[in-house]
Amino acid sequence: MGRVKSVKFKLNKFEYVKPFHITNSISYDTENIEVIVELDNGVVGYGEASPSFRVNGEKVQALMALEPIVNEMITGMDVREYRKIFDETDKLKAAPSIKAAVQYAVLDALSEELGIPVYQLLGGAKKELETDYTISIGTLEERVQDAREIVARGHSVIKIKVGENLEEDIEAVIAISEVSKGCKYIVDANTGYTPKQAVKFVTELYKAGVDIAVFEQPVGMFDIEGLKYVRWNSPFPVAADESARTKYDVLRLIKEEAVDYINIKLMKSGISDALAIVELVKSANLRLMIGCMAESSLGVNQSVHFALGTGAFDFYDLDSPLMLKEETFRGKYIVEGTRYKVE
Amino acid sequence: MGRVKSVKFKLNKFEYVKPFHITNSISYDTENIEVIVELDNGVVGYGEASPSFRVNGEKVQALMALEPIVNEMITGMDVREYRKIFDETDKLKAAPSIKAAVQYAVLDALSEELGIPVYQLLGGAKKELETDYTISIGTLEERVQDAREIVARGHSVIKIKVGENLEEDIEAVIAISEVSKGCKYIVDANTGYTPKQAVKFVTELYKAGVDIAVFEQPVGMFDIEGLKYVRWNSPFPVAADESARTKYDVLRLIKEEAVDYINIKLMKSGISDALAIVELVKSANLRLMIGCMAESSLGVNQSVHFALGTGAFDFYDLDSPLMLKEETFRGKYIVEGTRYKVE
Repeated sequence: MGRVKSVKFKLNKFEYVKPFHITNSISYDTENIEVIVELDNGVVGYGEASPSFRVNGEKVQALMALEPIVNEMITGMDVREYRKIFDETDKLKAAPSIKAAVQYAVLDALSEELGIPVYQLLGGAKKELETDYTISIGTLEERVQDAREIVARGHSVIKIKVGENLEEDIEAVIAISEVSKGCKYIVDANTGYTPKQAVKFVTELYKAGVDIAVFEQPVGMFDIEGLKYVRWNSPFPVAADESARTKYDVLRLIKEEAVDYINIKLMKSGISDALAIVELVKSANLRLMIGCMAESSLGVNQSVHFALGTGAFDFYDLDSPLMLKEETFRGKYIVEGTRYKVE
Repeated sequence: MGRVKSVKFKLNKFEYVKPFHITNSISYDTENIEVIVELDNGVVGYGEASPSFRVNGEKVQALMALEPIVNEMITGMDVREYRKIFDETDKLKAAPSIKAAVQYAVLDALSEELGIPVYQLLGGAKKELETDYTISIGTLEERVQDAREIVARGHSVIKIKVGENLEEDIEAVIAISEVSKGCKYIVDANTGYTPKQAVKFVTELYKAGVDIAVFEQPVGMFDIEGLKYVRWNSPFPVAADESARTKYDVLRLIKEEAVDYINIKLMKSGISDALAIVELVKSANLRLMIGCMAESSLGVNQSVHFALGTGAFDFYDLDSPLMLKEETFRGKYIVEGTRYKVE
């Protein structure tokens, strides 16, 4: 058995290969926090927080200052009693990405101690997944060109960012679909539309013969009634992302019958709430996808093991490490083209 | 890694120390099914099914006939991929006690293989619990005498069976409370009252100054509206037991705002649904207790590890092995008076 001896935070900066443009936001780089949990028996577990101010209200400077707080919280605790550590770190309500990284680092240490990978600790449901790849907002030509390259690299699921200009978006999705026959589309408005715009968007695409696998977060984060309006007026499944951070958010969405899909991101929920959301969504007969913020391979590793262990997801939007410049690959998974595998 | 080589069912009969009388049912003995999962590496895991015809519609003869079916389902599967085995055995809808025993035996085998107890695999939240002890339906004198003996043995939580005669029940609970000052009471009507009777029952006890910690299953199994009526008119928390078998039942109870507590029994839900119910109930800010059918120490072992691993329960109604004549204690826990402990 191993008890937590120390928790260390380390700031790592990554540049995007090319700027990442979503509704009202363009990113050129990301600052992630590597979390290193060392046990008194020498075992080390790793996690990564990829903070989001837009979604979580997190600022990296403020999160870095939590290192001594987290040490105080969990130093001396046994990783075999990980639910206690989860309960303790659940208190980090304003720092969910840190909560995720710490909780995962604990599981990673337990996994090393037991000699069993994290995805097996979580149930070992699957051994591989295919990630989608995302087309940023851009000119029609840029978007179509991106689509051609994504198809050429073998992806069969394409994520399309929309939400800044309804007419351009409709035109772009139709144009993209024409150069990517056979692909599935996750269209993500990142809160950019009004409910009526969102319904017009899906109605026009439906009329044009474009099939959308998941229509993500069409309306504002706190507009649950708007989400419900879109869901009940859309021929395509509607997902909550920004609106679904905690298990409490998700139970409310279920009660309100507001969505067909939940997009789980560990950075919003941590491991503890993500496990709860999996059970909530399955009990409600709804569907799940898993997404990411700007995690490197170290951070997406967490979502790969979570997704494969629980086996609960239809779609995997885990392309961030493919979009970042990274010197050393740090995942405990293997990348084969568009697929991530574990052994 | 170990793959399932065989699953064996073995019928074990246990007599009650004294007849167990609840609403419309008196038990003198129980026939439980021991489930033995052997892996190809020689590791063996154990579970126990304690079937209930009244709650689950299960008959032991029919369950015994499922042995080859279960072998066909899971032989060759790796216990490290236990979610796959859970998904497969979730199909045993009409045999939830067998589902529970098989799923637990798989976790038990994984636990032996990894050298980590099941309660730690599930999170290691707690190390000990206190079980309540149950007073059957009987004459006023018998009930009061039972209460004296239970208090003398050191129990601080007493479960009181009611539901056959409203006036006698009220009188009995008041009389019991007078000889067991300081104890907490779980009162269980096992579906015996109408909604109006149930409200009269709690109102009269409240007027008499008796405090009830949990009022279990006052009304019929399928009377969700009745449960809700009692909950909203009771000064004491109301629990669903017979009404809450699957995760789907529990989500409906949450949506309908019908109860304050859920009584999880592995024999109703298996491990898979019980894990989901823990997350559902915590997400809904409701409370949990854990109960049993007529499990021996082998079967209650499952609930002890589940309860301590998840750490989610306020009350433990795990007294069945204390009520059965058993030649050999088979639990992987230690009994110290009213407490069950793990190391």
